[in-house]
Amino acid sequence: MPEFKVIGKGVPRSDSIAKVTGTAKYTADISWPRMLHGAILRSPHPHAQITGIDCRKALALPGVRSVVTADDTPKKKYGGFIADEYPLAVDRVRFFGDEVAAVAAADRETAEKALALIEVQYEILPAVYDVFDALKPDAPLVDDVVGKNLAYKYSIHRGDIESGFNASACVVEDTFQLPTVCHGCIELTTCAAVPESRESMVIWAPTSAPFMLRNQVGATLGIPTAQIRVIQAAVGGSFGSRHTIKAAIIVTLLARKTGRPVTLSLEREEEFLTSRPRMAAEIRLRMGFAADGTILAKKTDITANNGAYTATAPLLLETTARRADNLYRIKNIETDVRLVYTNRASSSAFRGFGNPQMHFAIESMMDMAADRLGLDPVQIRLKNATQKGDITAHGWKITSCDLTKCIDTVTRAVDWDGRGPARKFVPSGRKRHGLGMACMIHIAGRRKPTGFSGSNAQIKFLDSGKVVIYSGEADVGQGCSDVFRQIAAETLEVPLETVETATLDTLHCPFGLGSFSDRVTITGGNAVRMAALDVRKQIMAIAAAHFESPEDILTCENGVIRCLESGQTIDMVKLVRQTITDGGGMPLIGQGNYWPPFEEYDTKTKYGNLGVAYTFAAQAAEVEVDLDTGHVKVLNFKSAHDLGRTLNPLTASGQVEGALAQGLGYALMEEMHFEPHQTQDLSFLEYKMPTMMDVPSSEVFLIESIEPNGPFGAKGVAEPGLVPTAPAIANAIFHATGARITSLPITPQKVLDALAKLAD
Amino acid sequence: MPEFKVIGKGVPRSDSIAKVTGTAKYTADISWPRMLHGAILRSPHPHAQITGIDCRKALALPGVRSVVTADDTPKKKYGGFIADEYPLAVDRVRFFGDEVAAVAAADRETAEKALALIEVQYEILPAVYDVFDALKPDAPLVDDVVGKNLAYKYSIHRGDIESGFNASACVVEDTFQLPTVCHGCIELTTCAAVPESRESMVIWAPTSAPFMLRNQVGATLGIPTAQIRVIQAAVGGSFGSRHTIKAAIIVTLLARKTGRPVTLSLEREEEFLTSRPRMAAEIRLRMGFAADGTILAKKTDITANNGAYTATAPLLLETTARRADNLYRIKNIETDVRLVYTNRASSSAFRGFGNPQMHFAIESMMDMAADRLGLDPVQIRLKNATQKGDITAHGWKITSCDLTKCIDTVTRAVDWDGRGPARKFVPSGRKRHGLGMACMIHIAGRRKPTGFSGSNAQIKFLDSGKVVIYSGEADVGQGCSDVFRQIAAETLEVPLETVETATLDTLHCPFGLGSFSDRVTITGGNAVRMAALDVRKQIMAIAAAHFESPEDILTCENGVIRCLESGQTIDMVKLVRQTITDGGGMPLIGQGNYWPPFEEYDTKTKYGNLGVAYTFAAQAAEVEVDLDTGHVKVLNFKSAHDLGRTLNPLTASGQVEGALAQGLGYALMEEMHFEPHQTQDLSFLEYKMPTMMDVPSSEVFLIESIEPNGPFGAKGVAEPGLVPTAPAIANAIFHATGARITSLPITPQKVLDALAKLAD
Repeated sequence: MPEFKVIGKGVPRSDSIAKVTGTAKYTADISWPRMLHGAILRSPHPHAQITGIDCRKALALPGVRSVVTADDTPKKKYGGFIADEYPLAVDRVRFFGDEVAAVAAADRETAEKALALIEVQYEILPAVYDVFDALKPDAPLVDDVVGKNLAYKYSIHRGDIESGFNASACVVEDTFQLPTVCHGCIELTTCAAVPESRESMVIWAPTSAPFMLRNQVGATLGIPTAQIRVIQAAVGGSFGSRHTIKAAIIVTLLARKTGRPVTLSLEREEEFLTSRPRMAAEIRLRMGFAADGTILAKKTDITANNGAYTATAPLLLETTARRADNLYRIKNIETDVRLVYTNRASSSAFRGFGNPQMHFAIESMMDMAADRLGLDPVQIRLKNATQKGDITAHGWKITSCDLTKCIDTVTRAVDWDGRGPARKFVPSGRKRHGLGMACMIHIAGRRKPTGFSGSNAQIKFLDSGKVVIYSGEADVGQGCSDVFRQIAAETLEVPLETVETATLDTLHCPFGLGSFSDRVTITGGNAVRMAALDVRKQIMAIAAAHFESPEDILTCENGVIRCLESGQTIDMVKLVRQTITDGGGMPLIGQGNYWPPFEEYDTKTKYGNLGVAYTFAAQAAEVEVDLDTGHVKVLNFKSAHDLGRTLNPLTASGQVEGALAQGLGYALMEEMHFEPHQTQDLSFLEYKMPTMMDVPSSEVFLIESIEPNGPFGAKGVAEPGLVPTAPAIANAIFHATGARITSLPITPQKVLDALAKLAD
Repeated sequence: MPEFKVIGKGVPRSDSIAKVTGTAKYTADISWPRMLHGAILRSPHPHAQITGIDCRKALALPGVRSVVTADDTPKKKYGGFIADEYPLAVDRVRFFGDEVAAVAAADRETAEKALALIEVQYEILPAVYDVFDALKPDAPLVDDVVGKNLAYKYSIHRGDIESGFNASACVVEDTFQLPTVCHGCIELTTCAAVPESRESMVIWAPTSAPFMLRNQVGATLGIPTAQIRVIQAAVGGSFGSRHTIKAAIIVTLLARKTGRPVTLSLEREEEFLTSRPRMAAEIRLRMGFAADGTILAKKTDITANNGAYTATAPLLLETTARRADNLYRIKNIETDVRLVYTNRASSSAFRGFGNPQMHFAIESMMDMAADRLGLDPVQIRLKNATQKGDITAHGWKITSCDLTKCIDTVTRAVDWDGRGPARKFVPSGRKRHGLGMACMIHIAGRRKPTGFSGSNAQIKFLDSGKVVIYSGEADVGQGCSDVFRQIAAETLEVPLETVETATLDTLHCPFGLGSFSDRVTITGGNAVRMAALDVRKQIMAIAAAHFESPEDILTCENGVIRCLESGQTIDMVKLVRQTITDGGGMPLIGQGNYWPPFEEYDTKTKYGNLGVAYTFAAQAAEVEVDLDTGHVKVLNFKSAHDLGRTLNPLTASGQVEGALAQGLGYALMEEMHFEPHQTQDLSFLEYKMPTMMDVPSSEVFLIESIEPNGPFGAKGVAEPGLVPTAPAIANAIFHATGARITSLPITPQKVLDALAKLAD
């Protein structure tokens, strides 16, 4: 093991004190002279034609500065995959909450009063919420771009599915229902737009992808991106919901029209209506197994609820369709995916990005198969587990993998062999205890088939001795700002406290794609490492000039540069500061432009190595099921995550612990309801998320497979924590009660229903 | 004349709309969550021993978070030339307003209440305000570092003063009195300090030298500069008063002690007490002339009032002592300078930096000599005027000079020859009209004898097409941000509106010395030009790769790159943006590290070329003097400024026009009073500055001598506008009335007294 100074040490997040003491500055905490307050008028109908908008009464209200509608926009549809969305509705609204108009006024109250004065004439259209209803020939057509409610479909084939099933000793088949769940960020989304001069607009937003937001605002409003600057304010949650933010487009429109700074905060109910929740899906899964548990075939049908607009759904569904296949050595695969428009709010990214849905299905089915074959659920997983060096069915190259160790670690931690040897439920009283486990694979840094999927960083070494990191990647709470500091401090051998990661700002920071697919540590970290090595090279050249000796006989250790020939030494920081000062104060600048190693990728068959690296995990849950009430209590939870090298154990464990709460909600509590005709859950009274009272005691094991593509061997751990949580809990419920529940969330009612069915 | 696209065009300042519409964000407009408000307790005595400070009652007041005194500081004296000042008084106060303690409280009112509860025991000491009183042997000793009230003295000798006077046909001698005048910035100084994490402090301030402020806060409070970041907020005036700001030190102390953001606004009376006004001086001047007006000798004695602390006074007095000598071809010079401690507030930099004082003396005396010799004041100046190519008595190399043209221009503009041919006053009624003129020399970019006196800039060309300039030099209203944009846009051939100068921030911008000695356009501009040329070079390399041809057969004109061989062309911005995007979005970065050409300088004799360049001007005033009231009204004012190439005529003229108002105040209205025992002028009711009602119609001529050391031939024009204003007006009063007034301001009473003396 190499000796590190700051890598692997627990570094508290730089923003933690500000956040817990209340001094952190969120967008809502910022004001500007002559600032106006914005508010958005939303559709009260899930589907309707707009036949007229009359803003005159709203505009006449004292304090109102502007009302904007689609007429103030280029009326050009946009979308990452299917251009099917407007910044403000043109002629038609497609979900309850669709943006129709917006107001800028002297204060929030006036803006809200003005909303009520905008007269919109709607002609109500029939609406559809369920994917199978939407696929019926006579269903109301939600979208008018694709021309049918089936937005998108595709199939993947690997190996020979027929012979796989034919050879199987046991075929298991079931249908899994995955609900829509909401991110529920604590911070209400607030964006502000500030006209800086005639030509330029500064947008403050809690975004996870400032450059993408900049580009989106530019594209949707027809503003050159050179005139838009996005600054990331303090972020109180993202989890995928703040990659791009529609409120930022609308507030920019208001600021342009008024020429004044405008701030716009969503209300909690607007968050529920429009934060683009986790996609609901029905997964029909059929798997064939040999008698020893070897997986021989997997057939999957996914029907997913797009909602009214497409956003990232096609990419997300690739994850649902494909990622879990790489967890095990599966050769014969067939997957069919259908994405269906409905009059629900649009679904999009949420931590795990489509992966938790499929993992619930496959990791439930692994237990179902073990049960049928009389195998231990742990053994059937170990039998099939992907190993380092594998190239999976989809062509993924597993350059590091300690899945087996993850499984071993959590099962040992819960005394799996001692407490549940036969893996059969044993009735004992009205409160039953059970153990369950599940595994997962996730990606660390998704490559794009073409174009840039790396990361950029610049590092400045200032005359003051301060080292400043500029990364285009966003810290949305996962702690990358401090991991970048560790990487730079380790590489440059400077004290951690002199290293600062600059606020993410599209003016100052190099282009970055944003925080998604656990790419920030591995791609962003590699870029920071390259930039630091570039600075280090410049420092060694300075030292060579100082000692008047060639660089190759110089060493730098513990911040001391030594000339091996003369034995002379000098303090590195002192030397560099003096050199910069003597040179007029111009900082050293290092650059890192990281590209993942090139890999062939067939966009037609979707075969090829997709990730820079892959992460693995196993989780084990101990539950107590109350047979009388159906209530499930998670007593104890163990997580073992193969994250590559642990850069910062504090934040890494924190990520897993935080994800557990979300996974628990997904497993047992959370679901958004859209019937009969609109989003039903508009506050935390209706929509139940776990509180500290619900979160079990938990232990996190960080399993360090050293990843050759990662900075110091790191991969990532932000998203995986919740991916196997729901199936681990479902499997534990099965262990406790014999009831197999295939629909999330596993509410007490569903438990009671399943128990009743068992008793039949 | 070269053809320029944006150089020489009138570009409105980027911040002008924000400033006139009220959206500009000054430090006082910024708030932070949990922000506290600071206030400073000041000495009510001009000189006293502090025998005790009891903060208990103040600390007990609800809402008070902290009280700081010298005990919270390292008690180490600091100062640029003489370390004679503390952040908070230790044991002794030396002027009325000296900082004794400070409070941070929940609001300003509470902070002020707390100030009243701090019990300070003073033992009053005898005080001295007048320099000659202070030089008496029994005078109270103000300072305890130097050990006497004579803080500093020196002499300069050039040529042979004795033979110069002996050869003179006429020797003129007089004493000139220069008052203390206040900057009177419209914005009250507000500084804020925000603890960002345990290790770092962000200071917001309207400073003209963020890096100097950073270093000063670090040095005075014992904080490593790596832990301090200074951000320049919008600035509502500086004029030399905000190079470093004591309130910034004190607010940092409060923020460190409380761990919370603290904001601190000075009241108007505190501005008057502590903004370090223009230095009062008595100048005894004796000059010898040949019969044809040739200056043969100049003997100067300067006694200047330092106030209680030294600040920049020694450097400032070098300007007073020496700069005006270079306006004319004077060979024999002797100058003696004395800087004297008194119990006044410390004096320091104010637009012109010691130069207006001496110009009042010499430019009055030129007219006095012309009168004695029967010469036209214009002719005596033309006779002696420094010319391009001269090396002056002090070794200054005049690389560009159009002084003669400046004189010609203003005298022609006032019809000098037609309206005042004999230059003698002709009585005509009770309101007399007169014409007067004066010249000046100023510096553009003072070199330091050793070390860095250049400037740094970085330029980023972003994926969006935006070009961002990072300069360490501060825009305090003079408009350099936009001049830098012009230089970069011209060099890179990009549209001006895509170029932005980044907010000055010690984290993001390369080290800069700050805005003083008219150095920003010439040194900062050269650095920006170098950085832009660096980017341009990179662009041409990109184009060479694109055309697959050597760079030397490529041209770039009007933003179109052409291959001379193939005739192919490509839009430059389009090519660069595409290349950056294809490369992953990493911006191009250009660097400019400008050092003025090296010149020998003898620090002992103070001989050697001091400036990067020198600017010249002539101004002419037409006045009306009311013989009954003594009131002087300036009817008309003409300014001709040799500023090198005019980069932005709008801001250049604006500088001269703004300076005229200040020069007018210096000439006729402004004076701070310190007797009997404290600063008497604490509001604009007592301290009269010119308003728009007082400012005459004025015309500005920009005379373009092309300076080889300047960017596109530019020098500078921020300070000079007021340097010759007072003597031009005094000379016009003489022309109108025959009364020679040698003491500023020329109040009605002084005019009446002089007229009465004439009548004797």
